[in-house]
Amino acid sequence: MSETRFDVVGIGNAIVDVLAHADDQFINENGLVKGTMSLVDEAMAETVYSKMGPGIECSGGSAANTIAALASLGSSGAFVGKVKDDQLGKVFRHDITSLGISFDTAADNDGASTARCMIHVTPDAQRTMQTFLGACVTLGPDDIDDDLIADSRVTYLEGYLWDPDQAKQAFRKAARVAEASGRLVSLSLSDPFCVDRHRDDFLDLVKNHVNILFANEEEIMSLYQVENFDEALQMVRADCDIAALTRSAKGSVAVRGDEVHIVDAEPVDRVVDTTGAGDAYAAGFLHGLTREMPLDKCARIGGICSAEVISHVGARPDVSLKDLVQTALN
Amino acid sequence: MSETRFDVVGIGNAIVDVLAHADDQFINENGLVKGTMSLVDEAMAETVYSKMGPGIECSGGSAANTIAALASLGSSGAFVGKVKDDQLGKVFRHDITSLGISFDTAADNDGASTARCMIHVTPDAQRTMQTFLGACVTLGPDDIDDDLIADSRVTYLEGYLWDPDQAKQAFRKAARVAEASGRLVSLSLSDPFCVDRHRDDFLDLVKNHVNILFANEEEIMSLYQVENFDEALQMVRADCDIAALTRSAKGSVAVRGDEVHIVDAEPVDRVVDTTGAGDAYAAGFLHGLTREMPLDKCARIGGICSAEVISHVGARPDVSLKDLVQTALN
Repeated sequence: MSETRFDVVGIGNAIVDVLAHADDQFINENGLVKGTMSLVDEAMAETVYSKMGPGIECSGGSAANTIAALASLGSSGAFVGKVKDDQLGKVFRHDITSLGISFDTAADNDGASTARCMIHVTPDAQRTMQTFLGACVTLGPDDIDDDLIADSRVTYLEGYLWDPDQAKQAFRKAARVAEASGRLVSLSLSDPFCVDRHRDDFLDLVKNHVNILFANEEEIMSLYQVENFDEALQMVRADCDIAALTRSAKGSVAVRGDEVHIVDAEPVDRVVDTTGAGDAYAAGFLHGLTREMPLDKCARIGGICSAEVISHVGARPDVSLKDLVQTALN
Repeated sequence: MSETRFDVVGIGNAIVDVLAHADDQFINENGLVKGTMSLVDEAMAETVYSKMGPGIECSGGSAANTIAALASLGSSGAFVGKVKDDQLGKVFRHDITSLGISFDTAADNDGASTARCMIHVTPDAQRTMQTFLGACVTLGPDDIDDDLIADSRVTYLEGYLWDPDQAKQAFRKAARVAEASGRLVSLSLSDPFCVDRHRDDFLDLVKNHVNILFANEEEIMSLYQVENFDEALQMVRADCDIAALTRSAKGSVAVRGDEVHIVDAEPVDRVVDTTGAGDAYAAGFLHGLTREMPLDKCARIGGICSAEVISHVGARPDVSLKDLVQTALN
């Protein structure tokens, strides 16, 4: 593979997270399913927000979290996603560019506000998310710069992109350009409900366009509509070059054809908030993969990164992942 | 003292904090003095922000933090402060009202944006702050509701209010109404540089209007322009009914005339971020005082509250202070 300017370009929803503690009663009373993401309109977002306790705001978004973690690992990254030029949009832009990540997508001047994801963190460290997509719905194929895609070893796409209508076309265009340029396409399935909403499209993508697939246990079982993990594992092996499947405390499984690695989870003193665990895992895995490391080592680095992120509130790393990985692997 | 609707009404700058990690080099290169607060205009705020790493946003403001901690202790509180009706203004309003605190100050519809305080947290857990006052400069005497002041046992004022010009008049009006209603006036000196900017006014307030004074070691020494703590202690005893003086790891000293208590600091596993330590101490102290507790117990509760707040990033409590104090005192 020829030299590229970026290791990974992430395309995703540009979102500011609002995190607050919640109890199980809150989850039940608001008809939420713990551990999942649901979409809400602006009116519902206001209603839910008014019921939440005091929050902290920080930049989020699944693919954006992955690119942020890659930057912390020392990889070079770019991000494509749509904000409005409002206060929270400026916060998102500041946070991602302050990490040395290239982010040139023009902000909307009018229309809906920057997307917000209300994250309810329960005492069991699970997170339940409600997303108001806001400005994300205007991301379209014109926002995809062919040169940027061609200049990145991996184009990383989040499954959530399938929710805003025009983003689907941006997604397809980016995958097409990456393939034509001899680059790799990677997809994260994002959420079991998201898979359920877009199963046929995701199956087509996985079979025909995706080189590296990320999914957790529920997502991969939802994709193939099977009842146990091993069945899904055997099916994805046939469909995709590389798959990295995460299983929370059970660690992860990385497969490439006949090669199958079962990698234990990293120990964590106390799991505080699982927001961003999968995003950080994908970062670690891609960091290894773009450095031609063996698959089991990629999975191990993924596990180290997710262990850091779940040990505190918020989806992005609190310390240098580069230092952390170096210490853990030595 | 007759029954009141509120235990404490806090009047202060309504600020959203932007917290980011920084190293000593950052503090030096930007000409900052560690542990202090400086004021910046909007242009400087933009410049500094562009140099900061990724941040988290959460509601702050000194008196607002105190009222938030009082709510967590189970005290009833109200807050007076000025935001704009922008996104961060809505975040501030949401966070404070979600705690059950009464907050009725009208937001500005135009003019400067909601105030932001950029907080640089260094590895030694110290915080160095730069505040853009924004909408706070429009808080004035018309924002002070006489009935609210009369219906609160204590009117708590932050020294920082002396910086925005009109807020000074709001401050004086509130103190006047509190005195006329037979209520108590409490002042926090806020910052040694703030004391330096307004020494004569603060001396007048302390001698003639303040019933309960909060200050840390540097602030009280700055107020009286003396070189050692004990000298300042003897001077403040003559000037003020009650003074609570905090000394970081050395604990605090509470005085009321001939009564002097030296109370050790609460043990903390790891000091992470000292932002809000003084605000939380004041909350604990006032919680005890409005319940007619002995002075040493007030100081002890103050110490328990500040120990919680310095054990994590951010100026407001992460857990129920009521539960924490109950456990610690039993």
